This record gives sequence, structure tokens and C-alpha cells, in this order.
Amino acid sequence: MTTPRSATGSRSVTIATIADEVGVSATTVSKVLNGHPDVAAETRARVEASLARHRYRRRTKRQPTTTGQIDLVFHEFDSAWAMEIIRGVDAVTAPANVEVVLSHLGGRHRPTEEWLSTVLSRRPLGVLFVQSGPTRSQQQKLRRQHIPFVVVDTDSATSASVPTVGSNNWDGGLLATRHLLELGHRRIAIISGPEDVLCSRARVAGFRSAHDEAGLTVDPDLVRYGTFVVRAGYEHGMELLSLPDRPTAIFAGSDMQAMGVLRAARQLGLRIPQDLSVIGYDNLPVSAWIDPALTTVNQPLQEMAGLATRMLLDLARGVEVATTRIDLVNELVVRDSTAPPPGGD
Amino acid sequence: MTTPRSATGSRSVTIATIADEVGVSATTVSKVLNGHPDVAAETRARVEASLARHRYRRRTKRQPTTTGQIDLVFHEFDSAWAMEIIRGVDAVTAPANVEVVLSHLGGRHRPTEEWLSTVLSRRPLGVLFVQSGPTRSQQQKLRRQHIPFVVVDTDSATSASVPTVGSNNWDGGLLATRHLLELGHRRIAIISGPEDVLCSRARVAGFRSAHDEAGLTVDPDLVRYGTFVVRAGYEHGMELLSLPDRPTAIFAGSDMQAMGVLRAARQLGLRIPQDLSVIGYDNLPVSAWIDPALTTVNQPLQEMAGLATRMLLDLARGVEVATTRIDLVNELVVRDSTAPPPGGD
Repeated sequence: MTTPRSATGSRSVTIATIADEVGVSATTVSKVLNGHPDVAAETRARVEASLARHRYRRRTKRQPTTTGQIDLVFHEFDSAWAMEIIRGVDAVTAPANVEVVLSHLGGRHRPTEEWLSTVLSRRPLGVLFVQSGPTRSQQQKLRRQHIPFVVVDTDSATSASVPTVGSNNWDGGLLATRHLLELGHRRIAIISGPEDVLCSRARVAGFRSAHDEAGLTVDPDLVRYGTFVVRAGYEHGMELLSLPDRPTAIFAGSDMQAMGVLRAARQLGLRIPQDLSVIGYDNLPVSAWIDPALTTVNQPLQEMAGLATRMLLDLARGVEVATTRIDLVNELVVRDSTAPPPGGD
Repeated sequence: MTTPRSATGSRSVTIATIADEVGVSATTVSKVLNGHPDVAAETRARVEASLARHRYRRRTKRQPTTTGQIDLVFHEFDSAWAMEIIRGVDAVTAPANVEVVLSHLGGRHRPTEEWLSTVLSRRPLGVLFVQSGPTRSQQQKLRRQHIPFVVVDTDSATSASVPTVGSNNWDGGLLATRHLLELGHRRIAIISGPEDVLCSRARVAGFRSAHDEAGLTVDPDLVRYGTFVVRAGYEHGMELLSLPDRPTAIFAGSDMQAMGVLRAARQLGLRIPQDLSVIGYDNLPVSAWIDPALTTVNQPLQEMAGLATRMLLDLARGVEVATTRIDLVNELVVRDSTAPPPGGD
């Protein structure tokens, strides 16, 4: 079992190193490590201090201790989305015996200074930020302490020097909109994420590009921004579907938003997909089981999280990471919530 | 900032205590704490050993470090259910500056010895087990190291000496079944959790008690056990609804199972609630948004997790915990998936 922090140079610390430094025999160090009672208290204290200083980890077969911890920091804990990320991280950390310290920023996209000082003093192997990220000065502090970090699903223009794993949101917006255009829809609304978040704007850009390809203009009234929760989908859905010239299809920013749109449609007596087509985003497990099963953009959340975690552990081990700016490709999953428009082809 | 582990008697440890024990001045201890370079290496080692032994935590204004970590251990990460627990735990740990180390047992209900030895060597403030728990010998090892633990939603007959927070599953089974009987259903099926899990049997017992109250006997064919996932609900649902004398109502063991039942019903062309009533269990957020919105038993998952966390932190601080075996009361949430039976009153 290696001590992954190269910065302390502690990788090659052995019992002999400790014994030399403290001025005792290797047997004495072993006894301290194994909790034998026959070591003088003062000697034990000195050995323990040396072990602690070198971050020595015992490597017995019977005690496979953890190789360390990483911090997994969410912008907020929202619904099943966060769980998908957690699973993806866990798939990499569990086999590596790396522990995960879980926290969220209470809806903020930047960590507080309190959070940072806690992390700096605890010195995890690394930090994985989800839809959030450190400020420039926080980045410097983390780098100074050799604590690597990776951002999953970057929320805004992140400096090119920050390793990120995301998905191609422009492409996601394009795919979903093309599908609706191919079905014959001409009046398509989009409810994207918050306007100040880059991925939201990227999806709207993809939505526009698909319209451009088809030689169609976008009605600005049909472009909405909101948070990724059910309520946002419901409220925007009610507004859009109450327009005199209502859209025949709505492309939602998340599966949760799409569920809000479905509810709004039901309340207004609109059938899905006969009267209204709906596309979600994320491909959460639940989207396959609801009625109608949701057409959605499969954002490979688990893969994104796994890849980012692997990248983080490599950085922590000092392994050269060739590519640190990755966008995974999305895929459209067509189910039962999309169909040609009423009276369309 | 207090050091919450009372077992080491470290609550009242001050710089003076450390200075006395090591035989140096309080100023020297302060210097070590603040990382001043002008302390002899050997002295520093002895001070650090003493600080470590007492788990002394510096209390400066500029370094609001964490007060420690707890382990949150799931049986497995299943769907939105786990996220509700995580939120409940976080609501207590975040304000207390306690960090959460997240892990799961890969579907096992008992931790491995590897997991235990990692925890014993890391010494968290305490461990919160969800639908899982330590074996008797693991309990002894945790107790010997003064690491308290609390079990949330106990999965089987847990010794009375183990602090637990659950919900009254018998009562949940009773409430749901009474509701269906009151609507006029006489042929009611139950899909409970796995048969070797106590909560599953408790719900079936509540189901039987409601029938007893009404002077009805339970058809053994209509009592099923399965895992809490969508697929189990779908498969049992298909079987039950294909019976020659099919039930007019199904009480599922989880909202996820209920979603599987809804899907089976749709495939068989049965309308909910006109042809079949369905009740879920858990009241996950999603159950309010699906169509039809699900009647379900509200298991207060966040509250359960919060209460268990508070109990754990109290135990870690050596606070006397008056009651350590708590079941929260469930509540039936009636929505759109239940109605009188076809041809009923």
C-alpha cells in the first residue's frame, strides 16, 4: 500500500527509516505499529510522532487500511442526479480503497473560505467538484498544498488550466432538437437550466443550431431558463402551454423538469405524446419507468464521475495525465414521450 | 471547538495539560501547534505525540477545522432512497462541522473485516449504519475503541443494546391496508421487501392485522416478498395481475416497486386507479410527480437519518442519550393511485 502524496516524499518510508530516525530498533517500531504493550511510553510517543510525520501506513495483510480520502463536493444535493455521480465516483474509489468525504456548498458554486481551510488542514488526496469549483485564489492555495482537483460538469467558463470532465451540452441540445424537427415539429420550446450556467447556454446554442440547419428561426418567447427542479418545469410548462400559439414540443433541461412539464400537460388535459412531445435530459433511472417513458438525452453521469475520479487519483499519485479537459458525448434515448405533432406529417 | 470523544477524557485538554505532560512550556506547545520552526525536532515530536494521544484540536479563529468525521455506511446505494438519508444526515452534520465519509457494503448487510479494520484505524467520531449493522464481534471491537454506532432502519433483529432509529413498519402495513379495506377492496395483495429482513415481515404482519380487524382472511397467494427495486415490483405485479382471480389492489414495499407495478398494469391494459389501486412506501419526491400520483406510506427518511445522526453525535460527545431505540410513526399520504375497486361500493 503506497502513500499517494508524493509531495511529502513519503512514498519510500519503511520501518527501517522510522527506526533510524527515532534511534530505536526496527523491532520496536513494529511493536508500536502492532500495539504491543511492552514499549516504554516515551519511546512509543516518539515512534508514533515519527510515523505520523511521515504519514506512514502499516502494510500488514490483516489491516488493509484506506489509502486516503478524496472530497466530493456538490453544488447542492439535488435528487437522483447526485446519486448517479456518487455511484460513478464509488465505482472507482471503492476498489482503490479510497474513502469519499461528501459535502455540498448549499447551492453556492464556489466553496467558502471555511470549507477551504478545513480541506487544507485535512489534506485529502484530492477534491472532486461537481457543478462547482474553486476561485482562482482557492486554486492557488490547493496547488500550493499539492491537493489536486477536478471539476465535473463545469458550471461556467472554467480556466483552461483546471482539469474538467463534462459532457458536450451543445451537442445534447442539437440532438434533442433535431429529433423533434425530424418528427415534424416546427414550434418547439426549450426550458434550459439557469442562464448564468454555461451548460444551459450551450444547450440553447445547440437548439438554435438545429433550427439554423433546418432553415427555421427560433421564437424568443419559446426559450426559457430555470433551475433543474420539477417545479421549474411545471411552472414554465404551464406558461408555455397557456400561450395562444402553444408549442407542440418542449425540450426540458433535466428529467425532473420534464416531469414538471408532464404534470402541467396533464392538468391542461394535453396527452403525451399525441398533443405534446416532451424530451428530458440526464436519463435518470426513473425516466424509463414513468408513464409515458421519457425520451431523454443520456448524459453519462456515472461515466463522467468515474473518469473524473480516475483523473483525480492519477493526479494525486503524480501520474502524468495526458488529457485533462474532456467532454463525453451524449446520446438521445428515444422512448414514448415524443411523436409527430398533432396534425403534422 | 470541542473534541467530541469523551472516552479519552480529552474534553478538557488544554495547552497547559499537554505542556505539563510533556514537560515543556505552554509557549512551546503553542509554537508546535502554530508550526513555528524554532522548536527542537525531538521536542516537537513529543508534543505532537501528546497532542495526538489526546486528540487535541487547535482552536484558532483562522482555522475552523472540522470537528471530525462520521462514517455513513449503506447496505447499498439504491436510487433516491439513499439520497433522502444523506440529506437528513447532512442537515445535522453540516452545522456541526462534522464531515461525512460515505460508503456502502455492496449489498451485504454486515461490514467486512477489511472495512472494520480501516474504520478502527481511522477512528471516526462514530458510524451510522443504514439497513446494515455490525456483527456482535464487530460491535465489541467498535465499543473497545469507543467508536459509537447507530443503526438506521434496522434490517433484522438487532440486539437491544444497539441504538437504532427506524420507523414503525407494522403500523405502516396496517395503515395502508386499512385504507384499501375502507375503500372496499377485499382482494388485496402485498409485495413486501426481502423475507429475511425484519421490516418486511413487520409490514406483512400489519397487513394481516388489518385483515383480522375486518374479519377477513388473507389469501397466501397474495403475499409476496422481493427486493425493493422497480424490477421486483414489475415481476410480482405481472404475476399477481395474471392470476385468474387477480387482486383489485396491490400494496408495494417501496415507491420503486410501486412504479414497477404501475408499469405491469399498463402493459396489461389496466387503468390506475379504476381497475387497480396501488400503494407505495417511502414517499420519495418522485411519487408526487408521476402519473397517477402515488398513494404511499410516508416513511420520514430525512427525519430518521437526522435523529440518528444527532444521537450518534451525542454518544460521541459522551452526552447521556435517554432513548436509543426509536421508531418514528409513518403516515399515509393519499393521492391518485387508490380508489374503490371496480364494481365495488
